Amino acid sequence: MKRTLYESDHEDFRAAFRAFVEKEIVPHEPGWESDGIVPRELYTTAGANGFLGIDVPEQYGGGGVPDFRFNAVIAEELMRSGAAAAGLGLTLHNDIVLPYLLAYCTEEQKQRWLPGVVSGEKILAIAMTEPGIGSDLASMSTTAIRDGDHYVVNGAKTFITNGVNADLVVTAVKTDPSQKHKGMSLLMLERGMDGFERGRNLDKLGQHAQDTAELSFTDVPVPVANLLGEEGQGFAQLVTNLPQERLSIAVAAVAAARTALTQTLEYVKERKAFGSPIGSFQNSKFVLAELDTEIDIAEHYVDDCVRALNAGELTAVDASKAKYWCTELQGKVVDRCLQLHGGYGYMSEYPISKAYADARITRIYGGTTEIMKEVIGRNLGL
Amino acid sequence: MKRTLYESDHEDFRAAFRAFVEKEIVPHEPGWESDGIVPRELYTTAGANGFLGIDVPEQYGGGGVPDFRFNAVIAEELMRSGAAAAGLGLTLHNDIVLPYLLAYCTEEQKQRWLPGVVSGEKILAIAMTEPGIGSDLASMSTTAIRDGDHYVVNGAKTFITNGVNADLVVTAVKTDPSQKHKGMSLLMLERGMDGFERGRNLDKLGQHAQDTAELSFTDVPVPVANLLGEEGQGFAQLVTNLPQERLSIAVAAVAAARTALTQTLEYVKERKAFGSPIGSFQNSKFVLAELDTEIDIAEHYVDDCVRALNAGELTAVDASKAKYWCTELQGKVVDRCLQLHGGYGYMSEYPISKAYADARITRIYGGTTEIMKEVIGRNLGL
Amino acid sequence: MKRTLYESDHEDFRAAFRAFVEKEIVPHEPGWESDGIVPRELYTTAGANGFLGIDVPEQYGGGGVPDFRFNAVIAEELMRSGAAAAGLGLTLHNDIVLPYLLAYCTEEQKQRWLPGVVSGEKILAIAMTEPGIGSDLASMSTTAIRDGDHYVVNGAKTFITNGVNADLVVTAVKTDPSQKHKGMSLLMLERGMDGFERGRNLDKLGQHAQDTAELSFTDVPVPVANLLGEEGQGFAQLVTNLPQERLSIAVAAVAAARTALTQTLEYVKERKAFGSPIGSFQNSKFVLAELDTEIDIAEHYVDDCVRALNAGELTAVDASKAKYWCTELQGKVVDRCLQLHGGYGYMSEYPISKAYADARITRIYGGTTEIMKEVIGRNLGL
Amino acid sequence: MKRTLYESDHEDFRAAFRAFVEKEIVPHEPGWESDGIVPRELYTTAGANGFLGIDVPEQYGGGGVPDFRFNAVIAEELMRSGAAAAGLGLTLHNDIVLPYLLAYCTEEQKQRWLPGVVSGEKILAIAMTEPGIGSDLASMSTTAIRDGDHYVVNGAKTFITNGVNADLVVTAVKTDPSQKHKGMSLLMLERGMDGFERGRNLDKLGQHAQDTAELSFTDVPVPVANLLGEEGQGFAQLVTNLPQERLSIAVAAVAAARTALTQTLEYVKERKAFGSPIGSFQNSKFVLAELDTEIDIAEHYVDDCVRALNAGELTAVDASKAKYWCTELQGKVVDRCLQLHGGYGYMSEYPISKAYADARITRIYGGTTEIMKEVIGRNLGL
Repeated sequence: MKRTLYESDHEDFRAAFRAFVEKEIVPHEPGWESDGIVPRELYTTAGANGFLGIDVPEQYGGGGVPDFRFNAVIAEELMRSGAAAAGLGLTLHNDIVLPYLLAYCTEEQKQRWLPGVVSGEKILAIAMTEPGIGSDLASMSTTAIRDGDHYVVNGAKTFITNGVNADLVVTAVKTDPSQKHKGMSLLMLERGMDGFERGRNLDKLGQHAQDTAELSFTDVPVPVANLLGEEGQGFAQLVTNLPQERLSIAVAAVAAARTALTQTLEYVKERKAFGSPIGSFQNSKFVLAELDTEIDIAEHYVDDCVRALNAGELTAVDASKAKYWCTELQGKVVDRCLQLHGGYGYMSEYPISKAYADARITRIYGGTTEIMKEVIGRNLGL
Repeated sequence: MKRTLYESDHEDFRAAFRAFVEKEIVPHEPGWESDGIVPRELYTTAGANGFLGIDVPEQYGGGGVPDFRFNAVIAEELMRSGAAAAGLGLTLHNDIVLPYLLAYCTEEQKQRWLPGVVSGEKILAIAMTEPGIGSDLASMSTTAIRDGDHYVVNGAKTFITNGVNADLVVTAVKTDPSQKHKGMSLLMLERGMDGFERGRNLDKLGQHAQDTAELSFTDVPVPVANLLGEEGQGFAQLVTNLPQERLSIAVAAVAAARTALTQTLEYVKERKAFGSPIGSFQNSKFVLAELDTEIDIAEHYVDDCVRALNAGELTAVDASKAKYWCTELQGKVVDRCLQLHGGYGYMSEYPISKAYADARITRIYGGTTEIMKEVIGRNLGL
Repeated sequence: MKRTLYESDHEDFRAAFRAFVEKEIVPHEPGWESDGIVPRELYTTAGANGFLGIDVPEQYGGGGVPDFRFNAVIAEELMRSGAAAAGLGLTLHNDIVLPYLLAYCTEEQKQRWLPGVVSGEKILAIAMTEPGIGSDLASMSTTAIRDGDHYVVNGAKTFITNGVNADLVVTAVKTDPSQKHKGMSLLMLERGMDGFERGRNLDKLGQHAQDTAELSFTDVPVPVANLLGEEGQGFAQLVTNLPQERLSIAVAAVAAARTALTQTLEYVKERKAFGSPIGSFQNSKFVLAELDTEIDIAEHYVDDCVRALNAGELTAVDASKAKYWCTELQGKVVDRCLQLHGGYGYMSEYPISKAYADARITRIYGGTTEIMKEVIGRNLGL
Repeated sequence: MKRTLYESDHEDFRAAFRAFVEKEIVPHEPGWESDGIVPRELYTTAGANGFLGIDVPEQYGGGGVPDFRFNAVIAEELMRSGAAAAGLGLTLHNDIVLPYLLAYCTEEQKQRWLPGVVSGEKILAIAMTEPGIGSDLASMSTTAIRDGDHYVVNGAKTFITNGVNADLVVTAVKTDPSQKHKGMSLLMLERGMDGFERGRNLDKLGQHAQDTAELSFTDVPVPVANLLGEEGQGFAQLVTNLPQERLSIAVAAVAAARTALTQTLEYVKERKAFGSPIGSFQNSKFVLAELDTEIDIAEHYVDDCVRALNAGELTAVDASKAKYWCTELQGKVVDRCLQLHGGYGYMSEYPISKAYADARITRIYGGTTEIMKEVIGRNLGL
């Protein structure tokens, strides 16, 4: 069914961003996949072209337009280009970390950090998960003990997207280790602070152009001026920002699914077996009809979620529904589409192969499908 | 996610229709289930209360409001009441057959038929399927051979909803038996015409309060004045009306699914096993979270389809997507919900038992899931 | 793959039992479906023909052959005949209740009961489940309080197969209501005892020829001589007999699935759509290939389970695997096969329609799929 | 359920092969994964230890024991070790290519080739698939035109396992290009023949330690003495050997699934979330119970297939059932198991990550699931 989410502004933006991707990302992407990381310059180039901080007020250099549809366009175009992993850090920067700065920074902090975030000189990351705790954030053991005008931070974080490239890391810490949820706070750790080390770039099943790393903190002195919001509000702050994070993942998942379907449709119309295009076999036709239907349905749902987010009405439960269902759909789509490619689907040079490997993390990161179902089930009074 | 389809008019209408259902249908429904049919008076009572022909122009006694949202409210409330089968004929009358009259009747025909349709004195049916031909309409063998100012109709139709009660039957015939699609026309057969016989009320797996019958035609003389539209246009007319028919089924399917979920949620919160409510077990919680998510997603999709239908923009392909996906979802929901009822789910006195049996036909009638996938796949160029 | 379970003895027995079914059951079955029960004479006729108590020692009139393969043949032939519900009571009598008598009766009890059980004059049932407790047997509240040489029994049981016809009911009671598992005992209640009442024959989704009822006990005096085994052993006795009960259900489920597939293969080869047999469409072919494969696999697994049972080595865990997987498969098979019948699949006169309704209880009775997964999961150390 | 396939001979062999794997493969496997290939010495070491050509008659240096259970042990142990890709070539050598030599070689050919095959000096491959033809072998275009005592071979093959390492390549060619099936023959191409080139080692989603390559033939002169069997028998020869090839894949798939389950059980018992082991959550327990059940069922089916193969009775249809169902199960198991690992499942250092990537090809190679369903469906008369 025809989507009605976007207006002409968004389509103009899409054209501009697509051109950027084709020029600045696609040609370099194979090399970045081998390197396991994108160069820091990708951020400054994106910033120079207006693709970072679209919703940051103009006084800090941003676009001044708080409209998540632009973020959605970026996600769709990155998926479409086949350079999903290379662009994931940009999306994290814009969609997932930046909202914390916009929501909780003091005026001083905004002036200190936002211009660099918008220009791409300051790359963002967020550090929540710790080794061995999975989704159970309240059990974290990274501590930030107040000592005069500093906190002394000790602990470790893992699975940090942009972990190698990041300059500013919104870090969940326990300012009161005697408490669970209520002892958590958010602290901005900065590249170069003493005792702030990064582990190696982790080797993953997919998402190769995207750096993921462990971070470790040994007596890192962090100025109290780097506290985001108030002490003890960390858990509440994380919860508040979850809907946008989950929707961002959902939007990207649906776009990835649509891209895989489009590529596969081309493939099955061209490739022949037993004298006929593969796509003419009824089994292929039915599989693709089912995928097209479910992607269409998912698009309409996430579009409504985007509208709700823009209106300030997207609930954590609805974002969880979108996140889990769209990423499960993505997993199904890439699996079925790879199968329709036959042996070629297993060869790295075919985009579906990379899409398959890249997709496997989306049902896990940002809260696993199982955690989403817990959230939804609890909301049903169960 | 909050639905935004309905406005206050629809909610007022919902309240009125719900009261009607509670008073005129629910108390009698168990008897009708045993009888295998609803009394003809249900139609006149519905008509007297303004629930037939809402979109029929006022000059013929109708509501004068072409807005499918009212039809959707009726479907939702019938499902909610647990009297789905008893109400199916009303829905068929309003949603599926009446559009043919509105679209193709001449002024004379409208004056002749619409007032009775709106008052409920003339009950509608549509006769397409024939024994042994399934979805392959073009292979039908019922003929209508012109003889002066009459057609002489011979043949048989099967699986006719309202088959016993119907007074006016929109009947697909071959006016040119030498042709396939191009030889088809629509003819209005009327109760009492010579040679128009009804078979027994068919015994079905579910939908017991709803009469389904075979119709047979032996040299039935049908005035040429009963032709709907032009000769040879029958197939095109059927195709034109398919989107609304399919959407009607989709809307009802989602409403049935929502009803089953709501009832099951009540059940699992109250019933205990091993000392805890069944709903507190993680498996129950996850199953119900998944169903709630998929119903929510389906509601948003069919709501967008209703908007498109009202705007005259719903395509056959999109209606097919809605029809197949929502009826498959209905099947999944009633199955999972029955399971959560344990042994009680198999007892007829529990609504889920009836919902399970009623649901099994929706993936078949109005075009099977397989036919829908053919339609969708063809649209993908496959 | 060719099955190797049966030897010529079993095939001779199969031929004899098939003839019995064709003569004594099939012609009457439609009437029994309407009646909601089979006549008691079915049991005496079956007994006279040697189809009851095949494993009962000859001194009590039985066949003297403890070989579950004969039971499996009976289940397969009943399914094959389409009279599944009519035969369910026979299977319960032989496979599920009789083992308790063979295992726990004293010599006096055997002499008192077994001859009637073998002749069919004494119809068996087992009463475990109570209203509101589901699978949580230890929470039962039916009590049997010792008073001299009698127990005084009070309480109620529900979902009792053969509930109306049964003469001898193995009943789980609490002889020590202060205990949970350890307070349970098995007591034989007999038709005609004071205060032993039967509720109405319950109206169900399917299995119409099979009587299911509630039983209620009000100060029923039961001689201590009717205790099976020792006081307090009831739970252990039930657990010991579960593997055979579950395997019996699994065998029947696979046989029902095989029957549905065979019928559907005939149907799709004969019925045409768009000029070709339905079965020639690739989607039909793939669906049926999948079902054939899974039924084949299930047959080999239950055959191995039958061998293990005969060798006294079938574990509760393996029986649970067979029970859950085969009944889930049955559910899948009847659903897919009904769909391939199109509208005819919904008509009661088609066997697939009855098979669909009959099948829905097998995932629930004898322990739900969820309980089976608990058992299996616990065995994994989880 | 306890498996009964293996006897003490096989368990002794298992211990020996396991020791070999632990010593000769596991320590080097990470390097081979990076290299994209195993060293040729792996074959000579395997040969020296008696793990090649177990079923080759002793006169050619083989084990002289035609019992596929030994092959199954090898597959199981390779999967268990986590070095699946490193061992795949060994399995191909033994299970898939060698049977052609045993079945079709003349005495002269046996003497020429078998000793090297058994010692590991001659590594085997088979070349059927060509670029762009997928499963439609009869459409192949590689030609072998007779010219005196040579054939002149032209064409290309792709997706050749052991493509880089192979010395002897059983190659399907058209000796009569005017025919489809009847023009096919099998010809042994040997390393070093003029005009026989190998393409690069293909970059794949998984199976990294296993070399896969394209082969190209430009006027390669192949002696007529290298023809396997008779001209024109190629298609029939390929069909004859399919059951063993498919069973070999099925056995490995089930073993891979069992390995993944075992590793995941360890993981979920150890890892905690919200204060409890992940495995104690009901959802984890149910998922793992389902996987354990299906793997158990699959093991019993493939064990029966192995017995049938040893007895010379395994049909192509039954092998197709085993191949498709077990590889689909493998895909399901690795997906569910990876999910239960959370973020760690996506990290290459966790075996489940590699198992996931390795598994994706098994539903495709050796005949896709879709081709298997075609074979099975055709056998049903569809």
